[in-house]
Amino acid sequence: MNNKKNLIVGQSGGPTAVINSSLYGVVKESLAHPDRIEHVYGMINGIEGFLKDMILDFSEVLSEEELEYLKNTPGAYLGSCRCKLPEDLSDPVYPKLFCKFENLNIGYILYIGGNDSMDTVSKLSRYAAMSGSDILILGEPKTIDNDLILTDHTPGFGSAARYVATTVREIVTDASVYDQKAVTIVEIMGRDAGWLTASSALARKTANDNPYLIYLPEADFSTEQFVQDVQNAFEKSPSVVVCVSEGIHDADGTLICEYDRSAGLDSFGHKMLSGCGKYLENLLRSQLNVKARSVELNVCQRCSSMIQSKTDQQEAVMAGRYGVNAILKGETGKMIAFARENNSTYQSSCCLEDVNQICNQTKSVPTSWIAHSGTDITEEFLNYARPLIQGTVEVPMGEDGLPLFLSR
Amino acid sequence: MNNKKNLIVGQSGGPTAVINSSLYGVVKESLAHPDRIEHVYGMINGIEGFLKDMILDFSEVLSEEELEYLKNTPGAYLGSCRCKLPEDLSDPVYPKLFCKFENLNIGYILYIGGNDSMDTVSKLSRYAAMSGSDILILGEPKTIDNDLILTDHTPGFGSAARYVATTVREIVTDASVYDQKAVTIVEIMGRDAGWLTASSALARKTANDNPYLIYLPEADFSTEQFVQDVQNAFEKSPSVVVCVSEGIHDADGTLICEYDRSAGLDSFGHKMLSGCGKYLENLLRSQLNVKARSVELNVCQRCSSMIQSKTDQQEAVMAGRYGVNAILKGETGKMIAFARENNSTYQSSCCLEDVNQICNQTKSVPTSWIAHSGTDITEEFLNYARPLIQGTVEVPMGEDGLPLFLSR
Repeated sequence: MNNKKNLIVGQSGGPTAVINSSLYGVVKESLAHPDRIEHVYGMINGIEGFLKDMILDFSEVLSEEELEYLKNTPGAYLGSCRCKLPEDLSDPVYPKLFCKFENLNIGYILYIGGNDSMDTVSKLSRYAAMSGSDILILGEPKTIDNDLILTDHTPGFGSAARYVATTVREIVTDASVYDQKAVTIVEIMGRDAGWLTASSALARKTANDNPYLIYLPEADFSTEQFVQDVQNAFEKSPSVVVCVSEGIHDADGTLICEYDRSAGLDSFGHKMLSGCGKYLENLLRSQLNVKARSVELNVCQRCSSMIQSKTDQQEAVMAGRYGVNAILKGETGKMIAFARENNSTYQSSCCLEDVNQICNQTKSVPTSWIAHSGTDITEEFLNYARPLIQGTVEVPMGEDGLPLFLSR
Repeated sequence: MNNKKNLIVGQSGGPTAVINSSLYGVVKESLAHPDRIEHVYGMINGIEGFLKDMILDFSEVLSEEELEYLKNTPGAYLGSCRCKLPEDLSDPVYPKLFCKFENLNIGYILYIGGNDSMDTVSKLSRYAAMSGSDILILGEPKTIDNDLILTDHTPGFGSAARYVATTVREIVTDASVYDQKAVTIVEIMGRDAGWLTASSALARKTANDNPYLIYLPEADFSTEQFVQDVQNAFEKSPSVVVCVSEGIHDADGTLICEYDRSAGLDSFGHKMLSGCGKYLENLLRSQLNVKARSVELNVCQRCSSMIQSKTDQQEAVMAGRYGVNAILKGETGKMIAFARENNSTYQSSCCLEDVNQICNQTKSVPTSWIAHSGTDITEEFLNYARPLIQGTVEVPMGEDGLPLFLSR
């Protein structure tokens, strides 16, 4: 009797610099078990594309050499989706999905994503249990936001944090060339959790270096206090660099980026759509009469191939491989998580956590890691984050002298 | 009799990724001529700081090892200024400056900058000639804009173009993950000249790849035509990436980024300050009802250390060294320029051009290098630009795992 099954892997949610490294780990490890896994399939555009029968067979589309380029290709090789499955497990989409899985002789499903994607893993595994299906389903974590609970950190965060720290250090250097009072505001991703914004503190070359002010969404933001903070910072240097999370909000919970939208209309009569950085730039120009500029790091934070963290890339591959081995041992309904060894030098390992507890939860930066001033983070955060951004990746270059990316 | 003189070097205008490589070349070569050059001084904050006696002596502030880190440090190590000397050479600032030069026994002045800085070189050298001073003055080119005339290209352009091409390739990859109609607009520096924006075409992995639309300031921009262009581009792919120069303008010469300023006021009652990318994003959302996003590459274009072009870095060093040798041979009133050898493989060399002809002029992208559609550039441009972005630089990393930058 042939007890071989097929494995299918999908990607979901916003891309990261290493979501394809996780995919690489999954595919590479799956191909190493030809006795257990017959075909390694990929869902195109996640569960949404799968419902439209959009799949590929990795052995058919990628040579062994091409597979290696996956690790350095940003975006999501398989394409992604933002699909939320119905809460009600008696919805007809579930039997439809499982019928498709069975037709493809799928035994193993690995789904790479953040908290919304873990919701998909939770629902599929609960439906499998309920319907008596023996299809196993595990979640592979990814998010630059680092906001998944029950894991020390998430693949994608280290590279994004390395990008933020490197780029802020570059911006600080650039901003300091003129002998003139000037503020540069750097707006960083993270609507609910400030992990990435906090990483800007790693940019400091010395303890008393820019960025002088760092604001996370975990603390309430007051524009009056902010103007005062900037004025005080000018005592240190004529060039002040401020890092803010896109999600900063006032004590009433109103986002700072919404402030202008309630006032200004653009020339199409629409509410102005700009970030909090742009709002604060205008605020400082108007209140302090100084040169002000804002830089929104934007999607570059999550798709920079050249500033990948080697540690992050290696851990993403490790998580991918670990997931395949765990699912082959019969695990289901869990997410691969990272544990940090209690050593003086950084070391991490993989473990499994209940995906039902993880999905739809958000891990914030602990309040105790935010300085009393509300404008900085503490040494504990630096010690936590520093190991995750270590190591330079050698990016394969194409004949045109630019990074070689794989496309589908 | 001691015929040794001192050399002073200054930096001026906006920083680039390799302005410090030029400085490195100047200092390194100067230190190699102890028989002719006694001290190698730097002006802090250009001619403006020099007027306030702000100088440093390189032998005192940098060890030989530290000097090497200059090449990978963005910003301007000496600090910069945006000072325009008076047109009238009988202004008292000139004798004041030359008195200071003579007190320091300066024989040689090298000034690194763009067209405004070459204006300073022109004025100083004309004043020297007029007043019978034997102080020699040369200009070292730098600008990411690549808009200096009488030189094949400028140091700083290759690295910025490599940054643009790499980052646009990354953004294209990131933008294509969802199976949904979406436009991403990338706003690129260059107010009057489109060299950098044109470089986004290098990002294409194949001839028919994104960015599908590229708009330079050398051609008039019509918002109606633009909406039509985007609509047509959707026939190629659901994900359309558009690259625009910050300086695009309509047939009347009105900048597109000014369109919103004439309409909207922010909550401080000021005219809205946002780029043309943000304006076009809102335009497309309103007219085509599609998902739209804009990314302003901002200062990262000129300060990225990790995406420096090795060719650019080497040429910047070469120009620095060449300038010292030229000035020691008695040259003055000239700028170091690049000539491209007429070989099948790219090769460049340095030469000298009259700085009086260069200053205050702008070199545009030739109209014949812009496609008839007005939405793309031609093969000639690609052949011109491709060699300039070649080569990956190994960036020295500090103990914290981030690029090691020198600060003053």
